[in-house]
Amino acid sequence: MAADSRAPVTVIGLGAMGSALARAFLAAGHPTTVWNRSPDKADDLVGQGAVRAATVADAMSAGNLIVICVLDYRAMREIIDSTGHSPADRVIVNLTSGTPGDARATAAWAQEQGMEYIDGAIMATPSMIGSEETLIFYGGPQEVYDAHADTLRSIAGAGTYLGEEPGLPSLYDVALLGLMWTTWAGFMHSAALLASEKVPAAAFLPYAQAWFEYVISPEVPNLATQVDTGAYPDNDSTLGMQTVAIEHLVEASRTQGVDPTLPEFLHARAEQAIRRGHAGDGFGAVFEVLRAPAAQ
Amino acid sequence: MAADSRAPVTVIGLGAMGSALARAFLAAGHPTTVWNRSPDKADDLVGQGAVRAATVADAMSAGNLIVICVLDYRAMREIIDSTGHSPADRVIVNLTSGTPGDARATAAWAQEQGMEYIDGAIMATPSMIGSEETLIFYGGPQEVYDAHADTLRSIAGAGTYLGEEPGLPSLYDVALLGLMWTTWAGFMHSAALLASEKVPAAAFLPYAQAWFEYVISPEVPNLATQVDTGAYPDNDSTLGMQTVAIEHLVEASRTQGVDPTLPEFLHARAEQAIRRGHAGDGFGAVFEVLRAPAAQ
Ligand SMILES: NC(=O)c1ccc[n+]([C@@H]2O[C@H](COP(=O)([O-])OP(=O)(O)OC[C@H]3O[C@@H](n4cnc5c(N)ncnc54)[C@H](OP(=O)(O)O)[C@@H]3O)[C@@H](O)[C@H]2O)c1
Ligand SMILES: NC(=O)c1ccc[n+]([C@@H]2O[C@H](COP(=O)([O-])OP(=O)(O)OC[C@H]3O[C@@H](n4cnc5c(N)ncnc54)[C@H](OP(=O)(O)O)[C@@H]3O)[C@@H](O)[C@H]2O)c1
Repeated sequence: MAADSRAPVTVIGLGAMGSALARAFLAAGHPTTVWNRSPDKADDLVGQGAVRAATVADAMSAGNLIVICVLDYRAMREIIDSTGHSPADRVIVNLTSGTPGDARATAAWAQEQGMEYIDGAIMATPSMIGSEETLIFYGGPQEVYDAHADTLRSIAGAGTYLGEEPGLPSLYDVALLGLMWTTWAGFMHSAALLASEKVPAAAFLPYAQAWFEYVISPEVPNLATQVDTGAYPDNDSTLGMQTVAIEHLVEASRTQGVDPTLPEFLHARAEQAIRRGHAGDGFGAVFEVLRAPAAQ
Repeated sequence: MAADSRAPVTVIGLGAMGSALARAFLAAGHPTTVWNRSPDKADDLVGQGAVRAATVADAMSAGNLIVICVLDYRAMREIIDSTGHSPADRVIVNLTSGTPGDARATAAWAQEQGMEYIDGAIMATPSMIGSEETLIFYGGPQEVYDAHADTLRSIAGAGTYLGEEPGLPSLYDVALLGLMWTTWAGFMHSAALLASEKVPAAAFLPYAQAWFEYVISPEVPNLATQVDTGAYPDNDSTLGMQTVAIEHLVEASRTQGVDPTLPEFLHARAEQAIRRGHAGDGFGAVFEVLRAPAAQ
């Protein structure tokens, strides 16, 4: 969009991620003003056409769209607070990573300051910024997002608006990252079991990959439906039967000298689900326990 | 193979799984003798051409290949022990689920009894028995397995011999099942986070699936290499950086009222890996802690 490619943008924070954001805005033709606590990090960007703001106040005055990406929410607020009073009609798009609680508190704070606030979560590394497939989640007032959606497409072609609730991007962020770490930890736990018998992970890998493709992944949409409907059909394998097999996993982990914590967690949750009446249901019933852990 | 399709087989245990095994042997043309503690479970199979053995001793005498699949290893041993002394040259293929320790102890016991012993782990449900793609892992003496491999192909076309160590099939079994439960638990944890904001799992599912395909799965072969080489490159994202993000996951889980145990486990292991000197390495370094947990 010719109009949007000329919309001015300010980028505050020029670490690995902020620099990539500024480069992508420049590459898309946006007049880009930059500021960083350590000013030398702007040097390369200035060489590429960015305008260096001497102060945060200058950076905030260059245009109404302010994209900020720094270490954490505390640093983010300190930077904006340091300007005293910001010009009217500023829109803060905060791409700093944090928790849903951070995002909600910061949205409330921005409102007090008379600023519009969009929270965002970047689901990519710096080298992926600016491409068509790159995903950033956004949350905040719909009309504010819509007004800047085309400009924001310069940093992430697959940018996605989740809703008014500013905590949603961080929530989706930790939900996806959690799935990633958990799956990787599960693979490494299995690799540790096999390593205890001198079987290399490379020998186990093809079985793990086939198992992912034909057994694990195809069940995930069913789990989603189960979670949403609260009905957990057993599909030939009840939680009661699976608990016995999870016990084998726990015992094998202990016997082989591998950290038993992850299997013990699975076992405890399966047992809790059974105690809540789900012995004849499938593994999906564990959701009920994860969602509403026993108060203790 | 015409010769093998006529090899006689005995199946002991006619629960859901044992019945499926017997049906598959019959379908492939093997003279099949069956025995079950509750004799009426043999009725249908006899209608399909199976021979009902009146006693375990009769079942053990019908041919030299004895496939057994019952509740657990204890039941398995009780059944065989009840015959007193078995004929020479019996080959026991034990497809009962258990731990590597169960398998090793039972292999030693079988040797004392003068029987050959193959341990197996069925990676399928009863309805999948008899198909080309079905996987059963086997472990035990190579020449014993080889002598019966064609016959065993009647129950599982993708039957796989893992080596002499009889504990390997159970180890691969719990390793794959553990990966499955862990991944599913990770998905359900994420679904619980989103449910706490009334976001249905169906809305999260497409992101989770894309994340599996483009982020989680492609890294698994790299993790396998890292585990096997003991080198854990950071790929732009060190464990030090990721610990901060795992803290966001822990805090989000607590704030949203979701069971924080799984994120706390991930966080604790990442911290332990950092304390062992892996702050600048990637997430794969967590393997070192899982494999050799601190004695405490
Ligand atoms: N890198 C990634 O792969 C990635 C992916 C997704 C999300 N993120 C998120 O993006 C954000 C930035 O990450 P990054 O990789 O760019 O980190 P980084 O390279 O370490 O840069 C940190 C930035 O924060 C600034 N900063 C830190 N404390 C400050 C303070 N008190 N006042 C002012 N500025 C301060 C730094 O300024 P100085 O230069 O003056 O130190 C620098 O610009 C983080 O929230 C991170 O979680 C990163
Ligand atoms: N079903 C699956 O999807 C599946 C998948 C992989 C592995 N497996 C494994 O296969 C094995 C059998 O499973 P299944 O599904 O067939 O179970 P099942 O339908 O519950 O059948 C259990 C069998 O064990 C027998 N049994 C139990 N205790 C006994 C005892 N003390 N003495 C003699 N016989 C005894 C039962 O005899 P009665 O009929 O007389 O009770 C029956 O034949 C288990 O180790 C299971 O983990 C099952």
